[in-house]
Amino acid sequence: MRLTRFFLPILKETPKEAEIVSHRMMLRAGMVRQQSAGIYSWLPLGLRVLRKIERIVEEEQARAGAVQLLMPTIQSADLWRESGRYDAYGKEMLRITDRHDRDMLYGPTNEEMITDIFRGYVRSYKDLPLNLYHIQWKFRDEVRPRFGVMRGREFLMKDGYSFDVDKEAARHAYNRMFVSYLRTFARMGLKAVPMKADTGPIGGDMSHEFIILAETGESEVFLDKAILGLEIPSQDTDFFSDLTPIVDAWTAPYAATDEMHDAAAFEALGPDQRVSARGIEVGHIFYFGTKYSEAMGAKVATADAGDVPVHMGSYGIGVSRLLGALIEANHDAEGIIWPAAVAPFHVGLVNLKSGDEETDKACEDLYDRLTAAGVEVLYDDTDNRAGAKFATMDLIGLPYQLVAGPRGLKNGVVEVKTRATGEKEELSPDAAVNKLLAALTR
Amino acid sequence: MRLTRFFLPILKETPKEAEIVSHRMMLRAGMVRQQSAGIYSWLPLGLRVLRKIERIVEEEQARAGAVQLLMPTIQSADLWRESGRYDAYGKEMLRITDRHDRDMLYGPTNEEMITDIFRGYVRSYKDLPLNLYHIQWKFRDEVRPRFGVMRGREFLMKDGYSFDVDKEAARHAYNRMFVSYLRTFARMGLKAVPMKADTGPIGGDMSHEFIILAETGESEVFLDKAILGLEIPSQDTDFFSDLTPIVDAWTAPYAATDEMHDAAAFEALGPDQRVSARGIEVGHIFYFGTKYSEAMGAKVATADAGDVPVHMGSYGIGVSRLLGALIEANHDAEGIIWPAAVAPFHVGLVNLKSGDEETDKACEDLYDRLTAAGVEVLYDDTDNRAGAKFATMDLIGLPYQLVAGPRGLKNGVVEVKTRATGEKEELSPDAAVNKLLAALTR
Repeated sequence: MRLTRFFLPILKETPKEAEIVSHRMMLRAGMVRQQSAGIYSWLPLGLRVLRKIERIVEEEQARAGAVQLLMPTIQSADLWRESGRYDAYGKEMLRITDRHDRDMLYGPTNEEMITDIFRGYVRSYKDLPLNLYHIQWKFRDEVRPRFGVMRGREFLMKDGYSFDVDKEAARHAYNRMFVSYLRTFARMGLKAVPMKADTGPIGGDMSHEFIILAETGESEVFLDKAILGLEIPSQDTDFFSDLTPIVDAWTAPYAATDEMHDAAAFEALGPDQRVSARGIEVGHIFYFGTKYSEAMGAKVATADAGDVPVHMGSYGIGVSRLLGALIEANHDAEGIIWPAAVAPFHVGLVNLKSGDEETDKACEDLYDRLTAAGVEVLYDDTDNRAGAKFATMDLIGLPYQLVAGPRGLKNGVVEVKTRATGEKEELSPDAAVNKLLAALTR
Repeated sequence: MRLTRFFLPILKETPKEAEIVSHRMMLRAGMVRQQSAGIYSWLPLGLRVLRKIERIVEEEQARAGAVQLLMPTIQSADLWRESGRYDAYGKEMLRITDRHDRDMLYGPTNEEMITDIFRGYVRSYKDLPLNLYHIQWKFRDEVRPRFGVMRGREFLMKDGYSFDVDKEAARHAYNRMFVSYLRTFARMGLKAVPMKADTGPIGGDMSHEFIILAETGESEVFLDKAILGLEIPSQDTDFFSDLTPIVDAWTAPYAATDEMHDAAAFEALGPDQRVSARGIEVGHIFYFGTKYSEAMGAKVATADAGDVPVHMGSYGIGVSRLLGALIEANHDAEGIIWPAAVAPFHVGLVNLKSGDEETDKACEDLYDRLTAAGVEVLYDDTDNRAGAKFATMDLIGLPYQLVAGPRGLKNGVVEVKTRATGEKEELSPDAAVNKLLAALTR
């Protein structure tokens, strides 16, 4: 993409309203624009990251056997009356009356609707297990939206729902998502730690939050260092085998949010084992049994026990929130440092003298070669001055910068800068292309 | 995808509420489920087609120089007060009050918001031309939603907006979208004819609807046969060259909707040239000048004339509507006939005797080989009877069916059926794979 044909409105000033670093950087880097309190437009650079996160989620959901559909944003209040949540939900639900005076709402979550879909079609235990998910915009009318996309009102969430014939089968479904989430966040370059979460009246041990560690995280977390050394399950994992050993390995070491913290258990760890850090919740998985299926009559015929309400679980990932979380975990004073898998582009190509024939030609050649090999290049072909171009590249945080100017080209070299380390290397254009291809294409 | 792990709820009965063929078939084929009047869930099969349509739109928008962003669904009423449309819009606008009693609305279109984004960042004619688009859910509270996804309340639309310094530049922008739309619909296997549309108070000749021809179309159209023989602009078209010759060629032959019909001009054509047919609107492009930029103060500095309000155009494609339109244009009594480019899967693999060791093995092998080559296969590995499997495959309309059973395998053959023609061919498994690869991968 040529910058002269892109839309990248960089802000020079740090917006006053932004309280946290990810919000400041997303505004400055032209990734989002606030349209109303807690409601954002995703500008082209931000949208590219959002889409990459979605693709990773989709790939890992498919690997784990979940099937994607898409439910609408506007729901009928009647469904929520069936579950009893229409009155219970409170002011965070955006309630709407349509032209025929029917009560509608903007979905804050989808347990009711997915249960309705299930009961509309599925009759037999033979059609189970089933895990249906979607990635859709949600609305929660927060009283005080803040922290940019980390706590917006209109936000993008992946929410999935599993259906099983009994609790034992539901545990397999839960484990599949547990393992899938470990892989999903790791692929984004994040260290996500599963931590036991509150199960409320459901009880049991099947509720985990996935928390990523970031110095600027929203809440305090406590963990056994051992969990940070565990291996992420491989992509060859058979999700229909018994995943208990993996889940057991990941739930054995101590790891808890502030809310669930057991100080005595934590203190019992050796002092070298204890890590207290700050974290950001990016996912939540939860088994809730027959809560909705009983209320809404979602039953299946079993082989021998007649009709039974299905056992369900829900599995959420804060897709738009992840952009903020990723930046909180990956930045320095100059700007964002994107992990390659979610970077809006892989390489920022900087032309130090746009309009200079030789430099333009060298840049076009680099651009064509990288692009043809599938590398996503943002080519700064503007006539801005070099300092501004460098500052923009550092701010938007592409993994590599490739810099070409008349002086270097005279000596047969261009510069490759690795954003994360700041390391710079002068290389021939051929060697630079090879280095980038080796690093970025697998 | 194995059918036993997919979610494809085929309906045996034709739903009473569906008045038109596309609606009936989408319900029967398990593509959508109505959640409320005019509001649908997109079941997995339907979502796959929706995504393919989006990808084609995105690729062709990028080719024509448009840049993608994503605006939120919920907008502030204040923006619409600036343009004067908040009061004017009427009951189709879904109006919402949030918990702080602020007037909000579910966006039925985005002229106001995109103009707000533009004025927030762009100051100079040097940043033009600019074409920003998004693909986002819209809501129009139709008094009587009908015809399934063809006239829903919550629907997916691609809407783009161009910004130019003057009317002449805006015409170039208009022409880019005109040509882009010809390519976009052709890639979906549709014959879309641009027809002059009403320009209202704006006047001039820059408003065209893109209408596809289908026997079951919603409205009557009249055209000169010559337009059906014109060539679609190639993918090498330089969108930043002068596109006037292409646009002139496509606007010279007579083509009009019922509303814009000029019977005298039509009758002046030779009788062999006159085509009267039925059509479905799938796109609309429109130059509206400074209507919003003046009202909302979206100006740019020019080289010599001071600040001027930008000239704008809007460019819509009914993405979710296209699913209905595609089916109206491509079906027979048995079901849908998807053009390959938008088919939910390319091949339906039918195992005539699931559980039979040899047949299972042959099917697994076919499945693996096609999938490895990038062909999207839906493998019916259920134990349903053969007749039901064939009926489902014809209904869901994948371009090819590949049928393997014990009898054929004993003779070393499987069957390849081409859905569009009904043609069947017995081939060795190797020859069948080669035939499908040749037809589906380019």
